[in-house]
Amino acid sequence: MMEDIAKLISDGSDTFLKTEYMSIGVFTIIFAVIIALVVERETGTYYATGAFLLGSLTSIASGYIGMWISVRANVRTTMRCNSQLYLGFITAFRGGTVLGFCLVGLGLLNLVLLIMAYKVYFLDLTGTVKERGYEEMFEVVAGYGLGGSCVALFCRVGGGIYTKAADVGADLVGKVVQDLDEDSIMNPGTIADNVGDNVGDIAGMGADLFGSLAESTCACLVISGSSPELIQQSGYYFPLLVSAAGILVCALCSLISIHCFKADTSERVYVSLNLQLLLTTILMTPMLYLCSQYFLPKEFVLKTYKDVHVTNMEAFWCCILGLWSGYVIGYTTNYYTSGSYAPVKKLATQCVQSAATNIISGLALGYYSTFIPVCCIAITIFVSFTLADMYGIALSAVGMLSTLSIGLTIDGYGPIADNAGGIAEMCDLENARINTDILDAAGNTTAAIGKGFAIGSACLVALALFGAFATETGVFIVNILQPLEFSSLIFGAMLPYLFSAMTMGAVGDAANEMIIEIKRQFDTMKIREGIDQPDYEQCIRISTNASLRYMIAPGLLVILSPIVFGFAFGPRGVSGLLAGAIVSGVQVGISFSNTGGAWDNAKKYIEHGNLIVNG
Amino acid sequence: MMEDIAKLISDGSDTFLKTEYMSIGVFTIIFAVIIALVVERETGTYYATGAFLLGSLTSIASGYIGMWISVRANVRTTMRCNSQLYLGFITAFRGGTVLGFCLVGLGLLNLVLLIMAYKVYFLDLTGTVKERGYEEMFEVVAGYGLGGSCVALFCRVGGGIYTKAADVGADLVGKVVQDLDEDSIMNPGTIADNVGDNVGDIAGMGADLFGSLAESTCACLVISGSSPELIQQSGYYFPLLVSAAGILVCALCSLISIHCFKADTSERVYVSLNLQLLLTTILMTPMLYLCSQYFLPKEFVLKTYKDVHVTNMEAFWCCILGLWSGYVIGYTTNYYTSGSYAPVKKLATQCVQSAATNIISGLALGYYSTFIPVCCIAITIFVSFTLADMYGIALSAVGMLSTLSIGLTIDGYGPIADNAGGIAEMCDLENARINTDILDAAGNTTAAIGKGFAIGSACLVALALFGAFATETGVFIVNILQPLEFSSLIFGAMLPYLFSAMTMGAVGDAANEMIIEIKRQFDTMKIREGIDQPDYEQCIRISTNASLRYMIAPGLLVILSPIVFGFAFGPRGVSGLLAGAIVSGVQVGISFSNTGGAWDNAKKYIEHGNLIVNG
Repeated sequence: MMEDIAKLISDGSDTFLKTEYMSIGVFTIIFAVIIALVVERETGTYYATGAFLLGSLTSIASGYIGMWISVRANVRTTMRCNSQLYLGFITAFRGGTVLGFCLVGLGLLNLVLLIMAYKVYFLDLTGTVKERGYEEMFEVVAGYGLGGSCVALFCRVGGGIYTKAADVGADLVGKVVQDLDEDSIMNPGTIADNVGDNVGDIAGMGADLFGSLAESTCACLVISGSSPELIQQSGYYFPLLVSAAGILVCALCSLISIHCFKADTSERVYVSLNLQLLLTTILMTPMLYLCSQYFLPKEFVLKTYKDVHVTNMEAFWCCILGLWSGYVIGYTTNYYTSGSYAPVKKLATQCVQSAATNIISGLALGYYSTFIPVCCIAITIFVSFTLADMYGIALSAVGMLSTLSIGLTIDGYGPIADNAGGIAEMCDLENARINTDILDAAGNTTAAIGKGFAIGSACLVALALFGAFATETGVFIVNILQPLEFSSLIFGAMLPYLFSAMTMGAVGDAANEMIIEIKRQFDTMKIREGIDQPDYEQCIRISTNASLRYMIAPGLLVILSPIVFGFAFGPRGVSGLLAGAIVSGVQVGISFSNTGGAWDNAKKYIEHGNLIVNG
Repeated sequence: MMEDIAKLISDGSDTFLKTEYMSIGVFTIIFAVIIALVVERETGTYYATGAFLLGSLTSIASGYIGMWISVRANVRTTMRCNSQLYLGFITAFRGGTVLGFCLVGLGLLNLVLLIMAYKVYFLDLTGTVKERGYEEMFEVVAGYGLGGSCVALFCRVGGGIYTKAADVGADLVGKVVQDLDEDSIMNPGTIADNVGDNVGDIAGMGADLFGSLAESTCACLVISGSSPELIQQSGYYFPLLVSAAGILVCALCSLISIHCFKADTSERVYVSLNLQLLLTTILMTPMLYLCSQYFLPKEFVLKTYKDVHVTNMEAFWCCILGLWSGYVIGYTTNYYTSGSYAPVKKLATQCVQSAATNIISGLALGYYSTFIPVCCIAITIFVSFTLADMYGIALSAVGMLSTLSIGLTIDGYGPIADNAGGIAEMCDLENARINTDILDAAGNTTAAIGKGFAIGSACLVALALFGAFATETGVFIVNILQPLEFSSLIFGAMLPYLFSAMTMGAVGDAANEMIIEIKRQFDTMKIREGIDQPDYEQCIRISTNASLRYMIAPGLLVILSPIVFGFAFGPRGVSGLLAGAIVSGVQVGISFSNTGGAWDNAKKYIEHGNLIVNG
């Protein structure tokens, strides 16, 4: 029974990802051809195209591995939870570590291989480097980051539409109309919902963060290539070193916390996860100091559009700011979305009177929650930009993502626990269900933290790339007191809204379709009487088709708008557009991610009977 | 009976506005003292302080007159509607014209008086003007616009919290829980709801648009003061002339449409209102041509931070762009929020399955609706900025607001019709209720158009003032490729979110309080049995207290953040902050205004039985 259900989820996830990767593969190849024809036809080496393809493949592989493990870890977690909470926790957590460490490790490994291959084939091996040798080298290597981002875009959108359509559809009919329990086996949408956790929150989130990691590392490398000192002393490897050091620290911390801190109560599961994040951040601090002290030249000059003088301690501070900003953003997200703190508790009490006041207050909560993260980001940008120009921004992104292995582990842990709960419910394992619920609740909160990281680092990376773009095109001044720049800025600030409108509209439509289908099944089949089996496949098909159909338009919007704008208005227009999209996208992202997280946890808070209604 | 209810609404509105104006008066006086001490102590003339106070008073007076008329027009509309739809329409419409024409007329008159008074007392009357005479003159006159904006801020926030808290509270308990009709006399919140229409949608909206009008005119004047040609040929009166011409055109159009087009069916009421807006816009086009052809010098130079050469035809195009942008924005708003078009119809069908998909799709609808308005604004900014720098931006705002009298008339008409419906319902006048419902439905859509105008013109005005600020402080380049500027930009983009969080949080809390009170009354009193009278006063008190208490924090946020930021980071920081707030605020404003309008009309669409549910 348990294995059957696990297999349904596993097959569903596998089928969806393969179909999705087929579509993405088509796009990737089209883009690769464009890069080859437009950018590299002259040189005839097609190295950037290769890097692009490798980046895409690495992203796809990491996502797939994460999913592959999670659909196997979920049923094991259910089994262990049936005996002991602690064992279940470890199983789910270890499943998450595969995603976390595999993704970061694979990302680094392939990038290093790429650099080495380039050196072997294209650089003079005697040690004397051709003119602009390293700069050119890193520019083509940057295709790796682009490939990662490109896959991330479609995976995130496609996976997101899938998981939300299934989630909304299954919950609304199953829980609200039919009064079934969450994840009831009688609900035709329940398998789709569980598949969604794997393809959206594991493969999608993994691809997203892989994109940020690859982009920030490549942005650092590109800028490093302009510095003679960094080239001579191999200091350009610094971002890779930071990520590598991060893997070590994360591994150490996860071992410590798993073995020294037995997570055998609800409270302790929660503490264990949060402790790891804190511990990693604390340990990374001296680690970053050592890295910058011993592997960076004391002082170096970045010869970008102007000479930027940077000391190794300045580079250290950029990383540190990113690292701790990430932690504070995560902690703020936690505060606003966890059922343990005032905001969600207050949101839950609003439901006593009416759903409408809950919606108004939920939106307000998300809006409030932008304040501290945006302050952190603004301070990080200000200081690291001042200290080391765009290199500083890129370093702060690398610093923020240095704890990515743990971040992704916790992220991956959530859907596994969620799935485990689903399986327990469907198999009527009451004891397991109690334990998986505890794991799931903790995972919900920590997942919100992952989103906070993703948005924060995406903002820094986007800014670093924006700077690289401006430098590359010779636009050193983007004066918003000019007609073109200001108009582009306001137009760019609209793009995240248009993008969100497309994805939310898609979720609304797909969820609607799902609801109609589930209602149809309940009406025409004897599911509640236990005679007919619900048709899970049909629901999976609806989510799959909707996500593949609807992911194209928003994906193209993101890719095409700067290109079209660039042809029409030139680099100054694109600069305005990008700046507008960055500053507005951060707000939309943080506010809606937290509103959603808070609503989700307010629901859990109420379901667990925490709300005492007087009258 | 009818008079009693009208008196309750009238007294409630009167009391609230008087209380609100007391609080606003205190703030205004504090600001006036600050202006006098900080800005004008050296000159010792205190003219800007005087202009500031006059601007505030004009705004307060216009709002109060609008409310005074509307609480008298509402009951008359009910009476007329009881006999004929057409008569009711004319009455409500005429009530609206008082707000529209009074506000624009009074605004212009006082500004002209102010300029004349300054000339008499401070300028050399022999015709030779002191050095920087006119420039200085208009700078102090600009205090008028500031006064208007300052009152607008608090009126809009206070009135908005009042009306929404009452609306949500009354509807949720009355309609959803108790299953009463809208505006039922048994609902304790119903009077507060009707008062809210007057204080929020009439006095608040009036103050808001008065602020935009005064600011845009003053921004034009300030820049005009730097042009010798404009001074010599009295061309600086151009913005006043445009507004004055607008009054004439609007008056003509409203007479034509009232007398030549008998609005005796639901369809024709709707057409009548829309036709006026279109007709006014069409007629304003040649009028603007005449104004710029005969009252502006053929060519003139604005000596701001650089010499800007402008021809009268260029000025004409700036106005035209603003005028037609306003129309397109209004029309788009109409498309997205009216029950006659596809978006709202689709939104309504989403409700068949579940409230959740309706919420998701409603938010998506609002996000979609930013596209065309932002394109219009971006094009207007680009062209008029290119043609005539900040003068062009200010002119386009003046052009957009040239049809304000009609815009405000339609805006004022809506709440009067809404109130008339309330009174009809409470007095059980069935025939009147049918007619007022028709008037109200048309008013709902056109009110959304007014909000579109308000946001569009506010954006242009804000940009013009931002330009004036930058020029004044000698910041000619705001390069967002600099640490301070970019950080300020992203921080500024967060401010509209923080502001919205505060106001929405206030509405959520106040509505919650209102719901509890209304539920208490239903539980403890015998209202449904017709024995006890509901306690309307108590509900009015809750809305009043909440709005006065909660309007302070967001108001101070708006006023203090640029000041504090300026002291901390100087003019470059403030420039980034303002630009960020403008580009992000436009999106938040348009999207949420349209989401709300669409939800409201989707509700009406369903209530009127337009939705045929299959299965």
